[in-house]
Amino acid sequence: MEVLLKQRILLLDGAMGTMLQANGLKPGECPEWFGVNNPEVLGEIHYRYIEAGADIIQTNTFGANRFKLMEYGLEDKVYEINSEAVRIAKEKAQGKALVAASIGPTGKLLKPIGDVSFDDLYAAFKEQIVACARAGADLISIETMTDIGEMRAALIAAKYNTDIPVIAHMTFEKDGRTMMGTDPVTALIILEALQPLAIGANCSGGALQLLPVIEEMNRYSSVFLSVEPNAGLPALVDGKTVFPDTPEEMAEYALLLRDAGANIIGGCCGTTPEHIKAIAEVLKGLSPLPREKKRIFAFASRSRHVIIGPPYPLAFIGERINPTARKKLAQDIKEGHMAMVVEEAKKQVESGAPMLDVNMGVPGIDEKEAMKKAVIAIQAVVDVPLSLDSTHPEAIEEGLKNFVGRALINSTTGEEKNLAKILPLAKKYGAAVLGLCLDENGIPPTAEERVKIGHKIYNEARKYGLRDEDIYLDSLVKTASAEQREVMETIKGLTLIKEELGVGTVLGVSNVSHGLPSREVLNSTFLAMALAAGLDLPIMNPFDSRMMDVVRAAAVLLNRDADCKEFISFYKGSRAEASREVAAIRHPLCRECNIPDLVARMAKGEAEKGAKEGKTSLPAEEKEGSL
Amino acid sequence: MEVLLKQRILLLDGAMGTMLQANGLKPGECPEWFGVNNPEVLGEIHYRYIEAGADIIQTNTFGANRFKLMEYGLEDKVYEINSEAVRIAKEKAQGKALVAASIGPTGKLLKPIGDVSFDDLYAAFKEQIVACARAGADLISIETMTDIGEMRAALIAAKYNTDIPVIAHMTFEKDGRTMMGTDPVTALIILEALQPLAIGANCSGGALQLLPVIEEMNRYSSVFLSVEPNAGLPALVDGKTVFPDTPEEMAEYALLLRDAGANIIGGCCGTTPEHIKAIAEVLKGLSPLPREKKRIFAFASRSRHVIIGPPYPLAFIGERINPTARKKLAQDIKEGHMAMVVEEAKKQVESGAPMLDVNMGVPGIDEKEAMKKAVIAIQAVVDVPLSLDSTHPEAIEEGLKNFVGRALINSTTGEEKNLAKILPLAKKYGAAVLGLCLDENGIPPTAEERVKIGHKIYNEARKYGLRDEDIYLDSLVKTASAEQREVMETIKGLTLIKEELGVGTVLGVSNVSHGLPSREVLNSTFLAMALAAGLDLPIMNPFDSRMMDVVRAAAVLLNRDADCKEFISFYKGSRAEASREVAAIRHPLCRECNIPDLVARMAKGEAEKGAKEGKTSLPAEEKEGSL
Ligand SMILES: [Zn+2]
Ligand SMILES: [Zn+2]
Ligand SMILES: [Zn+2]
Repeated sequence: MEVLLKQRILLLDGAMGTMLQANGLKPGECPEWFGVNNPEVLGEIHYRYIEAGADIIQTNTFGANRFKLMEYGLEDKVYEINSEAVRIAKEKAQGKALVAASIGPTGKLLKPIGDVSFDDLYAAFKEQIVACARAGADLISIETMTDIGEMRAALIAAKYNTDIPVIAHMTFEKDGRTMMGTDPVTALIILEALQPLAIGANCSGGALQLLPVIEEMNRYSSVFLSVEPNAGLPALVDGKTVFPDTPEEMAEYALLLRDAGANIIGGCCGTTPEHIKAIAEVLKGLSPLPREKKRIFAFASRSRHVIIGPPYPLAFIGERINPTARKKLAQDIKEGHMAMVVEEAKKQVESGAPMLDVNMGVPGIDEKEAMKKAVIAIQAVVDVPLSLDSTHPEAIEEGLKNFVGRALINSTTGEEKNLAKILPLAKKYGAAVLGLCLDENGIPPTAEERVKIGHKIYNEARKYGLRDEDIYLDSLVKTASAEQREVMETIKGLTLIKEELGVGTVLGVSNVSHGLPSREVLNSTFLAMALAAGLDLPIMNPFDSRMMDVVRAAAVLLNRDADCKEFISFYKGSRAEASREVAAIRHPLCRECNIPDLVARMAKGEAEKGAKEGKTSLPAEEKEGSL
Repeated sequence: MEVLLKQRILLLDGAMGTMLQANGLKPGECPEWFGVNNPEVLGEIHYRYIEAGADIIQTNTFGANRFKLMEYGLEDKVYEINSEAVRIAKEKAQGKALVAASIGPTGKLLKPIGDVSFDDLYAAFKEQIVACARAGADLISIETMTDIGEMRAALIAAKYNTDIPVIAHMTFEKDGRTMMGTDPVTALIILEALQPLAIGANCSGGALQLLPVIEEMNRYSSVFLSVEPNAGLPALVDGKTVFPDTPEEMAEYALLLRDAGANIIGGCCGTTPEHIKAIAEVLKGLSPLPREKKRIFAFASRSRHVIIGPPYPLAFIGERINPTARKKLAQDIKEGHMAMVVEEAKKQVESGAPMLDVNMGVPGIDEKEAMKKAVIAIQAVVDVPLSLDSTHPEAIEEGLKNFVGRALINSTTGEEKNLAKILPLAKKYGAAVLGLCLDENGIPPTAEERVKIGHKIYNEARKYGLRDEDIYLDSLVKTASAEQREVMETIKGLTLIKEELGVGTVLGVSNVSHGLPSREVLNSTFLAMALAAGLDLPIMNPFDSRMMDVVRAAAVLLNRDADCKEFISFYKGSRAEASREVAAIRHPLCRECNIPDLVARMAKGEAEKGAKEGKTSLPAEEKEGSL
């Protein structure tokens, strides 16, 4: 399949919904149940798409998950509907086309906005996907997802319970983001870490609206790109939904999509076998753009991504959500309030932290439960990627389930027993993992020995199926007051990790000054040295103005603040003293992103949902998509 | 000679003065003129030392310079006395011993303490040394120098006007310093750069007093060490000067001196052929300690040295004595006042600057004269090594003549025409040279190209006879606001220079922030990066507390502030704010040195001089030494 995709553009089929309606599906009737009960009708539609030139046909299973089927009282038919739909499609495909199991959204929103958990969604998708796979589906096509959190549950369920390739399609709005606020690059970063065959977009406002989405994804993607646009932006004409784009127009747009990097092209709402035929003709003999492996080190939250390393802005991880030696915070966590946790999260992000560490290490509490609560609470107020910091793998996993994005696991050591617990979690949930360069014998004195452990962590991580860009190493900071001769081994270690492995680097810099006066002077000087030597992600206190000064200055010096723009805007007019006050601006993270307020977007999401339920607007994409 | 010195310890002869007195020299009579007129008496003394086992005999020319001879109205006999004395010695030596021309002090002090200039002393020594060399002296033995400035003039005169080897002996007081305040290591650093055959000590309070001097020199010296102690500390017994050490005692001490690293051993005041014979017997068959090349990068003023690089404390060059863009300072220099220059010098040293840059680049002035005035004025108030900063070689040379110590020449470029002017000055005056890694084509964009020019400068410098430790390179700082992409090439350049050449490194760090706000934030961050990459000597503003913070913090991190002692003592009890005030303590430069107040020492020097002229104290060493 991958070989094929390097040679030519594969064609998906077009819409299923309109085709079924034209062949007897009544309004309000369950399309998937209709298909099972009218196999000839369904088979005929598949046949027409194969005749039109589709390389891959998609099963009539879009809404065949327990939540959607519940709306028709059919929640006990999940296995039957999905099995039958796959069987019917395969019967028609006869080796002339591949059969992709179509997986659509549940219509449910994740907590705290909605009422389902990651586990609920995961269970529903697992049930549907396993049924499709057992029935012989050749691949999985997840479609029309508006929430990256739900997509994540579906994709993890597919990857973790089947061995067949998966294509992950999100649906984007006119503003280039999903309804829940995820931009294409953020979606790509989160999904690519879960290692699907292809990532892409479907439905939405037609090919021309998805063109910039595919272009944007193409700049960063190492995996194949797939696109199934609607036949244009739907309009209501005489009370009927009309899709304006003709087969000829869509064929023209297909060429543009191919030029933008699409490897798999099909159609969504409003497309017909005629559209697919026109596209097939125009793409005949055209090879896709070459796609090479890009090593993008990145993290993401629901609507924001942080790309690590040059030429991107310097990033760091705010270290304040950590109850170690902080009695009040520990008490807050112990009582399950999370009020201080939320406050620390807000203040750190206001001070410019692009990522936050979350440590719930209070002795004697249920750390798993605390991690879950904290991650959910933090996401309700800020919108940055998280570093999930625990020595308990169960707590880490609970954080990974509940964090909607791509997180960092903080941390594992080079010890086999830790690697065996942590690396599978990173793989399953698409997280990056931080490996501390120490093992059962402690922290080696020299950089070379530490980096040797780094190699071991790297090799193990690769064996477990992680990509290079999922691996971060910590060369470990020694305390100057106790082990002064080893302080610079840390810096040397960073250089060696970059030279020998080229993976990401993380350091908790402030350890260096333990027990000494004027710690900010030592920490900030050490930070500057470490950043120059290749430190990607310091774990630091964003309220320390010296540290923030160094981050902003290093960004200028390392050419990661183009034209010194952010630096000038922060310091201009300010006397030196200004920099000593707590920084109160946002970290200039993603130039491209207009970093939306998550809460506002969530509110918008709610409103849209209400609107859809009231059926007063255009057909909701959740229902129309690919039906 | 060098081959011989590696195989065995060479013996010098003993005192000349007491021997002449015992053979007819009257009190108040000129010993050198007496020798010329009593060649048999003089020849007999030489003969007895040769018989005693001396490998090298020293001519009766100790006071035969124009200034000393003037005291006897014999200033027009310089050529005659020196020629004759060498002839008499050679006649006796007959190939059984080498003949070293003895060169003693003039009795004059350099300006501003005394009334002679470097050129005056240089001319007098040149006259004497040339006469001795023409007469066939095998080597030069400069002796009993109490001022390193005068020694420097004599040694430069010897090195620059003859090709024969030179031994340079200073005389030390009971406190381990010369009367003018120079400690053994400081003397070694200044003299070794002038590349004599051997460095050492003579006269003083006897062998046991010179033992720690030789031990101290031995720790740092790459050249041979020579020592001629008195026969103990002289005492007045019944109105007569008595030297207590017997030949047997001196022989015992000679063994200790050999174990301390001496390669050449003889005697000064109070020693006789019997002493030399006893020493010869005890040293027979003993080889000297092995002496290897030590690459000590160092600078010195009259009484203070700064050793560069690990494990020594971090050093830097105060940049404030520079009239560029400083109208008032330029005016002060133009008017020849040097009041602000002196003030800047004092304040910078108080703030902890271990070295000072001196730039007199005011358009339209006599820069040579200004440099001379500034260097003399600065040395009257502070006691730190200087960096002589000019684009005019004449101004540099004037600075080199008048600075009593080992300076840095700031700077040359990689252009042939600059190298041809600057490198000979460095060689002649024992200065280090700073090479900017640029040439006729300007500053190359990449570190590799800059370091290529660095190689060229290095190779040329070596061709001109400079040692590795005389060479410093500047990888050149670009301005972030204009050439941001090249900023880190500077840091990379430092790493490459250290890896490929291992010479010293200098940077004017503050260029990086030109045209940007909060420059101290950028400069201090850049400084931390540069220090970690191998920067030895930043040229910086010691009044910038951020820069000073970074210097002190980097010293801790780079393990150049043992046990964080200096850091703790500076910051302990201080809130972070304290570090923002102008630092007001001395830079913790030389743990060993008790950094004397030069002015106080000069005053002491003056007092001693007065005392000598009054002839009320013990015989002054200038007169007694080796007579
Ligand atoms: Zn659609
Ligand atoms: Zn010292
Ligand atoms: Zn003497």
